[in-house]
Amino acid sequence: MGDPFGNGPELTVKALYEECRPVVVGDLASMERALAICNSPLSIRTITDVGEARFEYGTIDLLDLGLIHESDIPVRSKPYHVGPTTLGGEAAFRYVTTVIELALSGNIDATVTNALSKEAINMADHHYSGHTEIYAEYTNTEKYSMMLAWENLRVVHVSTHCSLREACDRVKKERILDVIHIAHEACLALGIQNPKIGVAGLNPHSGENGLFGREEIEEIQPAIDQALAEGITIPDKSPTPPDTIFSKALGGWYDVVVAMYHDQGHIPLKVKGFVYSQELGSWEAVKGVNITLGLPIIRTSVDHGTGYDRAGDGSALELSLLNAIEYAIQMALAKEQQQ
Amino acid sequence: MGDPFGNGPELTVKALYEECRPVVVGDLASMERALAICNSPLSIRTITDVGEARFEYGTIDLLDLGLIHESDIPVRSKPYHVGPTTLGGEAAFRYVTTVIELALSGNIDATVTNALSKEAINMADHHYSGHTEIYAEYTNTEKYSMMLAWENLRVVHVSTHCSLREACDRVKKERILDVIHIAHEACLALGIQNPKIGVAGLNPHSGENGLFGREEIEEIQPAIDQALAEGITIPDKSPTPPDTIFSKALGGWYDVVVAMYHDQGHIPLKVKGFVYSQELGSWEAVKGVNITLGLPIIRTSVDHGTGYDRAGDGSALELSLLNAIEYAIQMALAKEQQQ
Repeated sequence: MGDPFGNGPELTVKALYEECRPVVVGDLASMERALAICNSPLSIRTITDVGEARFEYGTIDLLDLGLIHESDIPVRSKPYHVGPTTLGGEAAFRYVTTVIELALSGNIDATVTNALSKEAINMADHHYSGHTEIYAEYTNTEKYSMMLAWENLRVVHVSTHCSLREACDRVKKERILDVIHIAHEACLALGIQNPKIGVAGLNPHSGENGLFGREEIEEIQPAIDQALAEGITIPDKSPTPPDTIFSKALGGWYDVVVAMYHDQGHIPLKVKGFVYSQELGSWEAVKGVNITLGLPIIRTSVDHGTGYDRAGDGSALELSLLNAIEYAIQMALAKEQQQ
Repeated sequence: MGDPFGNGPELTVKALYEECRPVVVGDLASMERALAICNSPLSIRTITDVGEARFEYGTIDLLDLGLIHESDIPVRSKPYHVGPTTLGGEAAFRYVTTVIELALSGNIDATVTNALSKEAINMADHHYSGHTEIYAEYTNTEKYSMMLAWENLRVVHVSTHCSLREACDRVKKERILDVIHIAHEACLALGIQNPKIGVAGLNPHSGENGLFGREEIEEIQPAIDQALAEGITIPDKSPTPPDTIFSKALGGWYDVVVAMYHDQGHIPLKVKGFVYSQELGSWEAVKGVNITLGLPIIRTSVDHGTGYDRAGDGSALELSLLNAIEYAIQMALAKEQQQ
């Protein structure tokens, strides 16, 4: 359900649909308020065990943790304007650890997360920088990574949250090869056979044969050569110019792109997925999904934050959560077929 | 007309239309072949002076320089597969210098260029790295720059063809302020009153207050503050995170974006403008226009190369040339109104 004072409850109400058998882990008071906010025709059935879920279309099976009470939620204000709180952080944290346990014990096939607030969980004394670290610890996973996706555009990054100068330093053969492997495995986990991988250059025009920048020659090409020798499919066989690789990926030329730094991958994903409306003065559509790779369980997530500033007014956009659910289904089906 | 053995002649035939009064500077043999290749219903009328042009819809007024003869163009092969030649380079160079002279003398209101080959013009002993340098020399312009556009997404770059490491070094207050001025002037030249300018950060999330990268604090913010003090409109008043600025620009939040390096601006432009088709194994649409700023005359250009490999088979896509013509019209009208 995500942070109870964020956009998670209303997004959950908007996104739940019949192509899977969903169980919501959260709180009754928040979900009931979300139904009212969204004028939803759905109803809620609380359960205490996944085995009790009926998966009837129109009814949300809710594993109610009983952490949030009606009196905790502001009545008159729309949006809530609660922001990060110890109560919200504690609740969001407990929802996450619960779904992880359910997945590890085989009670559910995949997990999908709404947004939580790093600040709120830390106020509740859970010192993690986000969902992914909680998942890593509770599943005993050391080596994990993230794939971002928008429709058929999938991207895995060589580096993310570091300066652009440091990102240049991190373009090293070993790391690139690791990320090619991660991208390859991720596609297999999505049920894509013999995935085609695009590997971006670092410099404009991939450096034009060393004319401006040598990372392509010294680091990226050797990693590509090694991957090709291992039988991985990289159609271009060399680093693809960063300004055309994403158009080609969108056209189906690759199943996944290895991006060399944060914005190289985030810019095309957001240009496609984030639609801004000047008239509304806000985002009109926010699409995209975040997939954690390397875990023993399936986890996908929305690609945005808690949206505290507008949470509770019913205006949150559910496309990202829908995408996350769709990707979770795809991965669960692929896993089933592989077993 | 661009290089006679490139895609210029056929693109010219496909793109000419009635919203302006076009004069083509090129060669009769190439244009006649292009009409045949494209099964075009248009006809050609050669002229020796712009004053003779009749601007009748259906007829191309061609200033024929008489440099290419029918025997120079391969008859049987489709595409031509001629590639860069001294003859093609010399012809393309002469077309360009002719349109520059026509514009400088006030015979035409704006110039639009098809692609030429840097290699071909150098074979013909004209040592320039491209159109822009020819324009600069023949118009005695020292300070010029380039704006790229796709529909309402317009981008001016702080740096272009250098390594990403060097691009980081070039993020300096003075240069950023120069580029903000260029972006501002460019919008005025397009008839946009009080243009809104977005200035991108360099690092992911604009460095998160110095957490990863300090260029935003030390170089970009001071340039923005100076521009704001001069009365230039920068709605965000600070560097905008690179992965959301282009979505906001597409939504109309800015009239132009100042990008910190080549791929930061080229990736979103090409993700929107370059549509790749896996079925065709080639580009399905290539949209986008290149505008040279700072010249005493108007010049816009296609955003792609000569496409020698497919030139002459009639498959070249004219959207980019259409965009270039549209932008030239917009600039000519704005210039007229300002006089």
